[in-house]
Amino acid sequence: MDRILIVGLGLIGGSYAEGLTRAGFEVGALTRSRSSIDFALQKGIISCGTTEIDPEWLGRWDVVICSLYPHVFKQWVRENQQWLRSGAIISDVTGVKGRIVPEIQSILRPDLEFVPAHPMAGREVYGVQNADASIFHGANFIITPTECNSEQAIARIEGLARHLGFRKISRLSPEAHDEMIGFLSQLTHCIAVTLMDCKESHHMVDYTGDSFRDLTRIARINEDMWTELFLENKEELLRQMDLFADKFKELRDALEMEDSGKMKQMMRLSTERRSYFDK
Amino acid sequence: MDRILIVGLGLIGGSYAEGLTRAGFEVGALTRSRSSIDFALQKGIISCGTTEIDPEWLGRWDVVICSLYPHVFKQWVRENQQWLRSGAIISDVTGVKGRIVPEIQSILRPDLEFVPAHPMAGREVYGVQNADASIFHGANFIITPTECNSEQAIARIEGLARHLGFRKISRLSPEAHDEMIGFLSQLTHCIAVTLMDCKESHHMVDYTGDSFRDLTRIARINEDMWTELFLENKEELLRQMDLFADKFKELRDALEMEDSGKMKQMMRLSTERRSYFDK
Repeated sequence: MDRILIVGLGLIGGSYAEGLTRAGFEVGALTRSRSSIDFALQKGIISCGTTEIDPEWLGRWDVVICSLYPHVFKQWVRENQQWLRSGAIISDVTGVKGRIVPEIQSILRPDLEFVPAHPMAGREVYGVQNADASIFHGANFIITPTECNSEQAIARIEGLARHLGFRKISRLSPEAHDEMIGFLSQLTHCIAVTLMDCKESHHMVDYTGDSFRDLTRIARINEDMWTELFLENKEELLRQMDLFADKFKELRDALEMEDSGKMKQMMRLSTERRSYFDK
Repeated sequence: MDRILIVGLGLIGGSYAEGLTRAGFEVGALTRSRSSIDFALQKGIISCGTTEIDPEWLGRWDVVICSLYPHVFKQWVRENQQWLRSGAIISDVTGVKGRIVPEIQSILRPDLEFVPAHPMAGREVYGVQNADASIFHGANFIITPTECNSEQAIARIEGLARHLGFRKISRLSPEAHDEMIGFLSQLTHCIAVTLMDCKESHHMVDYTGDSFRDLTRIARINEDMWTELFLENKEELLRQMDLFADKFKELRDALEMEDSGKMKQMMRLSTERRSYFDK
């Protein structure tokens, strides 16, 4: 079985570590904070870990999963790929792919392979202390291969995703992934942030139903990470935001004109389409 | 104890019937469909019910709760208040108040009293067959009294809300209610409908995380009821939609300008404000 190194032991990295250790893999971790390593060792979700670059130790691992901010991920590969064993696979959890995938693949040693992946799961809390492999159960997992990838390496990452309990494992081009994620995830975060920001709402907590809570759950957001992800996907996200704003204006104008036929038509369409997403 | 008549035995009316019967009240129902009455009798959530106007029977009830579309509610009061006993209280569950409250109060017999109420609870399913009094547990309940109301009648409706298990029972003016509901509930429904309508998304079900599901749960919507509620609150909802659209454009423009300082500031604010709404 593959020996797996997690680089960046936060919520997602830690949840990978927990799930893969439970599945019987040997899992190590490299991260900046000693207390994260200590916590993970004590909880038994890694077998070893370090905060320092040790070339010999880095050469031990078959699969290296980087759970890092995009710019940190690029820098880490640039500086540390030299220590990895020949044939090692690098994978990641980065939420945008269009820019980063060719950047990483173009600087990679020819005897290494980068299999880009995006686990569609998360929580509104941070750190390995909140790691919980069950967040992957029933979630979706997307791989965005390019012509640089081998079927064999892709299959190994798919295998890990199956061990982690993902419901559906798909492949998309990096561009199709970024359009999809721009719509499904980034746009929804923009909406949630806007809903909280456009009105002081503290006094409304005694009047709200569940809808406002549901729509703003993801307004609790890591501003450094999401700003970086938005900028990485700027053109696509702008397109999705404009698409949404135009349709929103259609509904607004129908209301202003008291065009109840148009309003009902829009609601019938949304009702029909939403049924696809019932679990 | 008050004898309570539910007029309109759907999801909300049926859930009131279940909760109030369990709390020991005598509960009757008047509704259009015989099968709804039969279902409710068989389930034991009403003690009697009818689909026909029977003047003598209508004179039996102390409190009449109308769970009807706004225009049907107005018509019902106009045609049937003549049969109610002197001193009876009418209440409702209507989601907007600014127009309907003065309309009803201005046509009401002087020996009746209308106490306007809005239970902030619901589900994406319909009919008494889905009635479930537990939807009120922990939910908010708003009364919008005017100078036509007596403290005693308001207190009786508050008492029923307590029997139904609401978490917080508040009073607001009809205008403050409609601004609040325009923002917290109607705007969020507009957003959910727009998200489903602006893009054909069926093929995305294998790629989505939870955020898109959360933001679109309420896109499954009863188009007749919500169109009527939106039009009843047109001016206020337009204000809330414009407020949202303006702030959304701010975030969009910050992204276009790559103004990461502004983007992070908006995310910090949303994170801070969202914490008020943690349960």
